[in-house]
Amino acid sequence: MSDTALKPRARAGGRTARRSLRSTTDSTMLPGLVNALPRCEVMDEEKVHLIDAASMDILENVGVVFRDDIALADWKRAGADVRGDRVHLDRGLVRDLIATIPADFTYHARNPAHNVRLGGRHAIFVPMTGAPYLRDLDDVRRNPTLDDLAMFHKLSHMSPALHSSAHHIVEPYDHPISQRHLRITYSSMKHSDKTFMGMTTSPKNAEDVMDMCAILFGEEFLETHPVTTGNCNGNSPLVWDETMLGAMRAFCRRNQPVLCSPFVLGGANTPASVAPAVAQLNAEALSALAYTQVIRRGCPAIYGHYLSTVSMRSGAPMAGTPEISLMNFMIGQMARFYGVPWRTSNTLGGAKTFDAQAGYESATTLSAVMHSGANYIWHSAGWNEAGMHCSVAKFVVDAEQCAMAYRMAEGPRWDDFDEGIAAVKDIGPGGHYLGHSHTQENFQRAFFMPELFDNNSIEQWVAEGSQEITARALTQARKLLREYEEPRLDAAKNEELLDYIARREREIPAADALNQEY
Amino acid sequence: MSDTALKPRARAGGRTARRSLRSTTDSTMLPGLVNALPRCEVMDEEKVHLIDAASMDILENVGVVFRDDIALADWKRAGADVRGDRVHLDRGLVRDLIATIPADFTYHARNPAHNVRLGGRHAIFVPMTGAPYLRDLDDVRRNPTLDDLAMFHKLSHMSPALHSSAHHIVEPYDHPISQRHLRITYSSMKHSDKTFMGMTTSPKNAEDVMDMCAILFGEEFLETHPVTTGNCNGNSPLVWDETMLGAMRAFCRRNQPVLCSPFVLGGANTPASVAPAVAQLNAEALSALAYTQVIRRGCPAIYGHYLSTVSMRSGAPMAGTPEISLMNFMIGQMARFYGVPWRTSNTLGGAKTFDAQAGYESATTLSAVMHSGANYIWHSAGWNEAGMHCSVAKFVVDAEQCAMAYRMAEGPRWDDFDEGIAAVKDIGPGGHYLGHSHTQENFQRAFFMPELFDNNSIEQWVAEGSQEITARALTQARKLLREYEEPRLDAAKNEELLDYIARREREIPAADALNQEY
Repeated sequence: MSDTALKPRARAGGRTARRSLRSTTDSTMLPGLVNALPRCEVMDEEKVHLIDAASMDILENVGVVFRDDIALADWKRAGADVRGDRVHLDRGLVRDLIATIPADFTYHARNPAHNVRLGGRHAIFVPMTGAPYLRDLDDVRRNPTLDDLAMFHKLSHMSPALHSSAHHIVEPYDHPISQRHLRITYSSMKHSDKTFMGMTTSPKNAEDVMDMCAILFGEEFLETHPVTTGNCNGNSPLVWDETMLGAMRAFCRRNQPVLCSPFVLGGANTPASVAPAVAQLNAEALSALAYTQVIRRGCPAIYGHYLSTVSMRSGAPMAGTPEISLMNFMIGQMARFYGVPWRTSNTLGGAKTFDAQAGYESATTLSAVMHSGANYIWHSAGWNEAGMHCSVAKFVVDAEQCAMAYRMAEGPRWDDFDEGIAAVKDIGPGGHYLGHSHTQENFQRAFFMPELFDNNSIEQWVAEGSQEITARALTQARKLLREYEEPRLDAAKNEELLDYIARREREIPAADALNQEY
Repeated sequence: MSDTALKPRARAGGRTARRSLRSTTDSTMLPGLVNALPRCEVMDEEKVHLIDAASMDILENVGVVFRDDIALADWKRAGADVRGDRVHLDRGLVRDLIATIPADFTYHARNPAHNVRLGGRHAIFVPMTGAPYLRDLDDVRRNPTLDDLAMFHKLSHMSPALHSSAHHIVEPYDHPISQRHLRITYSSMKHSDKTFMGMTTSPKNAEDVMDMCAILFGEEFLETHPVTTGNCNGNSPLVWDETMLGAMRAFCRRNQPVLCSPFVLGGANTPASVAPAVAQLNAEALSALAYTQVIRRGCPAIYGHYLSTVSMRSGAPMAGTPEISLMNFMIGQMARFYGVPWRTSNTLGGAKTFDAQAGYESATTLSAVMHSGANYIWHSAGWNEAGMHCSVAKFVVDAEQCAMAYRMAEGPRWDDFDEGIAAVKDIGPGGHYLGHSHTQENFQRAFFMPELFDNNSIEQWVAEGSQEITARALTQARKLLREYEEPRLDAAKNEELLDYIARREREIPAADALNQEY
């Protein structure tokens, strides 16, 4: 536990300045999280080895299907036992390959003050992505546009605990699907100077993202510094397809990290039991992690997963269930066993509105994630309806919840312990502390005061219009958007990015958009 | 982690019987929880000793006020340094006294199948108490009646993860306050055969509860078996008053456990800093725990606390904040350091309605509580509006959340690991598991399926009336109340209890009810 962890972020001007800031929102990004909590480890060493052995057995004897000729050829060259499209991976080969994945690395943002470290105890919060609907500033559920996407990138930029602006937080339906990745990437880059994600919707799209990153950061810088993150979903059980593998190659060749994410619907595409499901997921993740090192030795890569359990009554994916928490604890143990940074999903909700269900699901997931010691904490804001919509109200509340979890994960501070005990002696039995100098000195940082939770009396709450959290959160979102200032982007780079997009949009047909391999 | 922890509860008839039960709710009580999760310990040994030393320093040099002549006389006899109403407690005396508090014990319910163990890894969930308002079956906020209290006792009885029916879950305003404790105790005893709490609203009231317990369990059994729990709140900082101390004596003399609960509003009646606040709370709890052993050596007692942090903006108590979680982790460490079972508060909400705020607050608290390793997990259902109301909707949802947390705390099961891995080999890449025999065998117990979370598509949700969780939960509460069957109470005992109440109600004047010391 660091004694300095909870010191207020350095700002000029001291208490008076801090007070004057209260009328506008403090959107200064929190440094990348150093999670000081002990990890919740539900497996002893023997069980970790049991999972490892079962996964290696699966890789050797069942094999993994790579539906991609280039990958199959790569694997042959790497010495794997390839039979048709099924690759049998010897455990020695797997261990040798994953050994060169960096245990941690630093994401470089275009604003160096927003660089963040990932791996070990270093973690970052990244907003949700991929929603085909949003619940907007009026809580109306509809298809999103590029303007809506820009709004979420602005909110990401304004949220202190969010360390990334991600990519397609919502799907912008007002632009042809074949060209969408260009506008999405540009929106991430332009509306925030935090790190962001790169689209992997096709190998070609991934190449475009890499080219745009090269413009923003310089080609040489890109090759030597992680600046973005791709995600490659597996088709559980035990299949990786051409789209994802091609995108993976585009990223790894430029030395950019991808999340190797088996897509687990526990009980549907895994066994209906926690530990065997983790063993299968672990085998899947290892097979992709190993392949990143076939593509480029030493390239950063992240142990991924998307994880839900399936209702055995309805077949629907669920969120916030005890087994998801347990699997997070276990996957964290496996990733640390292999010395690879790992990704999880945060604040997932299956509710249709931002009701108490969404609150329980999200907070349960967030807590499990913090205790699991996850590094790349994706889907940290906005996710509801099993990812079918991103809610503006939930987005700002989740972002504040991440700030609260961040505070918890820093652990207690001890630097004022003696002064605190001296205050106990000063006050003595039956007194109160509100007027004490220690309280005056410490009240700003002592206890987190959530903006979006109402803790007033019911009388005051009624007097203020009986607003539930959704209404209050939407007011807060509007305030953030009013206060938003676009971070400066170098004019020449901006022009070069726009030229690139214009050229690629001439080259990519928009007409057959919906038929594009996506 | 027990390999058998997740085995389904034994029930006659196997799968067919279980299926046939699905139309009615399975209200079989879960056994007392054995929390297998590793504890979240945010202090190393040195820090635990630092808190201990600071607390002992406070007890020796600041002292604790006991506003009660009997307690002061008791303390003098016990060898404490008493100056006026302030008792200075030598650390040697404190350690000697608390050494005789049992590290764990068993609560005996009138139905022995509902006995539950407390202490070490053994924990129980107990509903909220003390609400002056309820949100009823129509979500209307109003003052409660004895019928409302009975309803909550019935819901407690019907909730598998609730191990107690508590006592005055809501305050029954339709009965004179001076006689209320009798009807409340009778309602707990009659509507459920789980363990329950005993009123400590005055020393006399506590004696009445003890007498009623003697009727229900027999005088001799009572003296040798914990059957109920009293709560004694401290007046932080460092004061215990006559009402609480008198009630404590009533319980301890009959060998019944009390919660020794400093009532902490962090920042208002403690220093505005986590670690010094814990040191003060720890000193307060120790002083009362020690006094229980002055009253009766070897009597069971529980390290208690009520804990909130105060908004330094509005002075309002807050729930679900990171500091409350941290304090829970730390208090758990201190209680284990002293080898005493400990109590915490669960699923607290400060929201005015059952909105997403209530969900986040409750789930955050529940998670922290599970990772802290708490034993007596009070306020586990219904609490909202900072305890000002008990919500029927929230009550049933919280109870289900406790069942989910219970499942998580059992950890993963390993007894079907080999079969699960065999299924992975059977299915192979690209298959699905829904039809596999392992899935068929395990689906009932594999993944928790919350009744009160809607995980259907939005289309289906709309077709079913677009109900948010509050409406669904109230429907579920009505269903539980329809299905409720009162557990049989021995007719002679019932009559004796009613006679006792009738006699005491003749003896206790109802007229000056509101002037009674309460």
